[in-house]
Amino acid sequence: MRIGVLTGGGDCPGLNAVIRAAVRKGTQEHGYEFVGFRDGWRGPLEGDTMVLDIPAVRGILPRGGTILGSSRTNPLKVEDGVRRIKDNMVKYDVDALIAIGGEDTLGVAAQLVEFGVNTVGVPKTIDNDLSATDYTFGFDTAVNIATEAIDRLHTTAESHRRVLVVEVMGRHAGWIALHAGLAGGANVILIPEQRFDLDEVCQWVENRFKIKYAPIIVAAEGAVPKEGQMVTKDESLDSFGHVRLSGIGEWLAKSIEAKTGKEARTTVLGHIQRGGTPSAFDRWLATRFGLHAIDAVREGDFGKMVALRGTDIVRVPIADATAQLKTVDPSLYAEAGVFFG
Amino acid sequence: MRIGVLTGGGDCPGLNAVIRAAVRKGTQEHGYEFVGFRDGWRGPLEGDTMVLDIPAVRGILPRGGTILGSSRTNPLKVEDGVRRIKDNMVKYDVDALIAIGGEDTLGVAAQLVEFGVNTVGVPKTIDNDLSATDYTFGFDTAVNIATEAIDRLHTTAESHRRVLVVEVMGRHAGWIALHAGLAGGANVILIPEQRFDLDEVCQWVENRFKIKYAPIIVAAEGAVPKEGQMVTKDESLDSFGHVRLSGIGEWLAKSIEAKTGKEARTTVLGHIQRGGTPSAFDRWLATRFGLHAIDAVREGDFGKMVALRGTDIVRVPIADATAQLKTVDPSLYAEAGVFFG
Amino acid sequence: MRIGVLTGGGDCPGLNAVIRAAVRKGTQEHGYEFVGFRDGWRGPLEGDTMVLDIPAVRGILPRGGTILGSSRTNPLKVEDGVRRIKDNMVKYDVDALIAIGGEDTLGVAAQLVEFGVNTVGVPKTIDNDLSATDYTFGFDTAVNIATEAIDRLHTTAESHRRVLVVEVMGRHAGWIALHAGLAGGANVILIPEQRFDLDEVCQWVENRFKIKYAPIIVAAEGAVPKEGQMVTKDESLDSFGHVRLSGIGEWLAKSIEAKTGKEARTTVLGHIQRGGTPSAFDRWLATRFGLHAIDAVREGDFGKMVALRGTDIVRVPIADATAQLKTVDPSLYAEAGVFFG
Amino acid sequence: MRIGVLTGGGDCPGLNAVIRAAVRKGTQEHGYEFVGFRDGWRGPLEGDTMVLDIPAVRGILPRGGTILGSSRTNPLKVEDGVRRIKDNMVKYDVDALIAIGGEDTLGVAAQLVEFGVNTVGVPKTIDNDLSATDYTFGFDTAVNIATEAIDRLHTTAESHRRVLVVEVMGRHAGWIALHAGLAGGANVILIPEQRFDLDEVCQWVENRFKIKYAPIIVAAEGAVPKEGQMVTKDESLDSFGHVRLSGIGEWLAKSIEAKTGKEARTTVLGHIQRGGTPSAFDRWLATRFGLHAIDAVREGDFGKMVALRGTDIVRVPIADATAQLKTVDPSLYAEAGVFFG
Repeated sequence: MRIGVLTGGGDCPGLNAVIRAAVRKGTQEHGYEFVGFRDGWRGPLEGDTMVLDIPAVRGILPRGGTILGSSRTNPLKVEDGVRRIKDNMVKYDVDALIAIGGEDTLGVAAQLVEFGVNTVGVPKTIDNDLSATDYTFGFDTAVNIATEAIDRLHTTAESHRRVLVVEVMGRHAGWIALHAGLAGGANVILIPEQRFDLDEVCQWVENRFKIKYAPIIVAAEGAVPKEGQMVTKDESLDSFGHVRLSGIGEWLAKSIEAKTGKEARTTVLGHIQRGGTPSAFDRWLATRFGLHAIDAVREGDFGKMVALRGTDIVRVPIADATAQLKTVDPSLYAEAGVFFG
Repeated sequence: MRIGVLTGGGDCPGLNAVIRAAVRKGTQEHGYEFVGFRDGWRGPLEGDTMVLDIPAVRGILPRGGTILGSSRTNPLKVEDGVRRIKDNMVKYDVDALIAIGGEDTLGVAAQLVEFGVNTVGVPKTIDNDLSATDYTFGFDTAVNIATEAIDRLHTTAESHRRVLVVEVMGRHAGWIALHAGLAGGANVILIPEQRFDLDEVCQWVENRFKIKYAPIIVAAEGAVPKEGQMVTKDESLDSFGHVRLSGIGEWLAKSIEAKTGKEARTTVLGHIQRGGTPSAFDRWLATRFGLHAIDAVREGDFGKMVALRGTDIVRVPIADATAQLKTVDPSLYAEAGVFFG
Repeated sequence: MRIGVLTGGGDCPGLNAVIRAAVRKGTQEHGYEFVGFRDGWRGPLEGDTMVLDIPAVRGILPRGGTILGSSRTNPLKVEDGVRRIKDNMVKYDVDALIAIGGEDTLGVAAQLVEFGVNTVGVPKTIDNDLSATDYTFGFDTAVNIATEAIDRLHTTAESHRRVLVVEVMGRHAGWIALHAGLAGGANVILIPEQRFDLDEVCQWVENRFKIKYAPIIVAAEGAVPKEGQMVTKDESLDSFGHVRLSGIGEWLAKSIEAKTGKEARTTVLGHIQRGGTPSAFDRWLATRFGLHAIDAVREGDFGKMVALRGTDIVRVPIADATAQLKTVDPSLYAEAGVFFG
Repeated sequence: MRIGVLTGGGDCPGLNAVIRAAVRKGTQEHGYEFVGFRDGWRGPLEGDTMVLDIPAVRGILPRGGTILGSSRTNPLKVEDGVRRIKDNMVKYDVDALIAIGGEDTLGVAAQLVEFGVNTVGVPKTIDNDLSATDYTFGFDTAVNIATEAIDRLHTTAESHRRVLVVEVMGRHAGWIALHAGLAGGANVILIPEQRFDLDEVCQWVENRFKIKYAPIIVAAEGAVPKEGQMVTKDESLDSFGHVRLSGIGEWLAKSIEAKTGKEARTTVLGHIQRGGTPSAFDRWLATRFGLHAIDAVREGDFGKMVALRGTDIVRVPIADATAQLKTVDPSLYAEAGVFFG
């Protein structure tokens, strides 16, 4: 048995842990061989490979990023893409693929299975927005980084009368904002799932100043104000005609300053949330995903994805994971509301 | 409604987060009042109370330990214990108790419910060995601390030919050793659930030296060698006749040195695993436990304990949690074996 | 002897460590009493005091911020300010002041000494831009936080072709950018002391992409491009006519994208650099400053400021510290140039 | 110009940063070539080399350990050692050596210079006990790790009545214990430079329990009790006749328990203090040492060692650094005494 491994999409702490676990278990327990495909689906598409044996995976467990590289190449949008992948699998003598990635990467995987490519999926998304698994690796790391940032802001909030805004990742789902906001003791949490009312936010800000300390607001990058309060088209373009880089964090700070007269400061965590060494939980989850992906390959259970359910690793159809974005349930968001204002 | 809150047993990062969430939700959403009972069951037993309102819980979310103090007092072993608790509940006008603790504290809670004391339980154990909940808060923090320690040892393992032993918490269950060992990339993980063979450990040590780097061994404090290899009675007493403080970590280092001739060094993490600020996961879990404990009180669902199942907080009979220690499943330990040696 | 203590200006990890050390030493070794003046010079001006004894300073060593509060009140700009301070010192029976602060706070202190107020200074600036001391506490903490952020960006830089910009503190001096940039292995470091050439920066960016990985650019918030490349007046105002909050980091990302066609992402660390627990070095330095401030008071050596020279704490005239901003020496910046591009 | 580089002695965070900076500056600014000698003096002695160019040093800045490996080989104790080194320098066309190490490694370097080997030294010691430099890299990292451990113990100290002992590195000098003890707010600090009185320690322990919280004792591994209180010969051997691994930390815990009746717990940090990523300060210092070592080579200033004085890197005769151990000055230790008990 010879297994090809690839990683697609944005980087996420834990990718290397999956790769290492799969290679260790496959090689040591079953005598499998491995081929690394470079840069997501570009690897099998173009036949770009690298050695993937036990020495190649030594020491990578605690490292962020992916030794295989990544890309957003979609072979289904490339002429003859499927055939070229199948040809390269024959050429490199690869019997099965382990595809580690998010919605896009797994979406391709699901379709390739239809075309007879033996594929097992491993879910990856920093935003935790994939259905069919309780958590994905990388998310816990991101939440820890964001929480630590909020912790540090409390010091300033205690001694200066400034509104502090933190913009965190989460374009379509507010999981990082919700978890980090709760864990960090934020006074307002804004998520993409529910449009916020700027006036209400300003009211919370005023209330907070009355009681004690300055307010800390955590906003997912995809958070959007109510219609009418929205960023106008004009506002989103700068004087060069470029799309403005500044995001919701800065918009909030500016708008709150304008409405309340309080000074506001923004922290934009950006890519530091997805880099660096994975948390212990993410290494544990990623390692177990890697081990169980090998079990799936061994049993010929293709078209499936490993997933976390409680403390168990289970298998679900890949299609289930990508069918629908996992967003924050309104009741869960409501639960957090007790800490607002 | 007036609710008494107490925390019992060893300290655990997240206790304060439970207290804060319960007080915030109870006060703000339902207008409940709270009384803090000091030092576990000693508080209601002796009528030792403290103010527990919103100002009292400000700023405690990120703090380890417990503002209520803790003890191992067992009111069931005290004459008239139950009556005295009931009297004090009347005296302080307390309608219900939220008891946050481990096996012992919850065991008392379960029995008090039989005697008509309205109690809701919140599970707490750094060792993660309570049944009926996927995880308890504090565990993730401990695993992160132990993992970070193992990470640091890798540097030395790469440049010196020394066996490195890390002793972690886990008297009866090997969860911390297993999770941190996997997350840290340890070469051997020893847990209380399965007696280890010193000769096999030495064989893994020798193998490791042949391939690369020096070996890192993670041992739960409750790990025990096979019979015959065991610590003798004599060995466990020092020349003063005191019980020797040195634990399995040191025993391993000494024994491996004797058998393999390799130098060995021990790190004993001790209490640093249960101190300091909780991880984001533990704060999230503890906060949700606190919120849901209030729901249980409000619904009069006494004799129940909040618990984590997947991503949901559910309620289970307190007795279920304490009926049996949750130990590491042999298959889970076997899964980790691929990384040994 | 009764000593008043105050902290002025922006918050800085280590302020509490100074206060604690002074109170511990003064009380225990010399039997002095202490009065806490609230919110910088506002405290002695308005007679706003708090208890400052040993119980009041318990547990504050590892805490960021200041238990005394802070402000930017300048008593010299208040009518009768000096007389009111002197009156309050008499009223509260205060013989001497320990003033902990930066340029402004110490500038006031220097002048009050002229008016006969017995004052000892302790230097504080997160930016490390005070003359007459090798380092000030808070700086090492800020550099560690910024370095850790850069570390995390390397992961992404290794797997995506994006320019990564980090904006750090430093309005007038580039110490944080220089130290964190060097420690983090940045590819470009931009400081306020030397105007940068956007074309050169873009050239470094292009070079970096040719060799390997994506470039990481660290920019002090006060970094400014060459004339002609400068932000125009228009650009600095948004469509609301507000001053734009977006800083040099965002400007760089946008400008580099425009010139090189490469995607760029910005992280703005903001206030997280000045919050949270102080590093070990900052606690050590702050503690020693506090101890030596007491020595100065005891010896009646007023008008002096404690300062670090090598590993020694010395005393210098307060005026020396505030006479001139300590900026990055061109030769030191040139030394770092070997790592650019 | 072709430069050989070697690292000797125990590992220390920052070694790789020195190597990287030297190679970057030598190659880019002066066109020098580099040869890596493996495992300290064993490399030039046996002619064991590795490629050391810019690609070889990419990404090593944040990594602990040393890519060159290390050993304690002393070529002066090997027959014909000096001649063999000189022969290998000719063979590999090496004009000068940069020797990075502690007392032993630099002691050899100093003597080789006498024999005409062009050598520049870079000081390295985790214990900070080398004369002629304010600090050595690795020390700040170790102090931060030990301080963080003490921080975590405070949580337990606040809620349990247990004496907490932390054993830190420092066989001959108490710098780590002193700095971490002060930074962590320890109640007792014991260093090798001054024999401690067990009765006095027990008195401090009793006092502490009376006031508040449990005591935290930081002991350097080389701390020794007064004569008569000392570990007996018998006590240092276990029942197997092995030398006991247990150190002063455990001895203290046991002895304090025996004398005060209070429970005591020990944390032995061991090798985690010298592993892992260097702190920002250590990276900065190590980087500057590497850059300045190249300046020394370029100017032919052999027999010198780079050293830190205040914020400057200077050069001193290697012999100065190794002539005398830098121990903790009694007055500095006395200064810390205000926090004891």
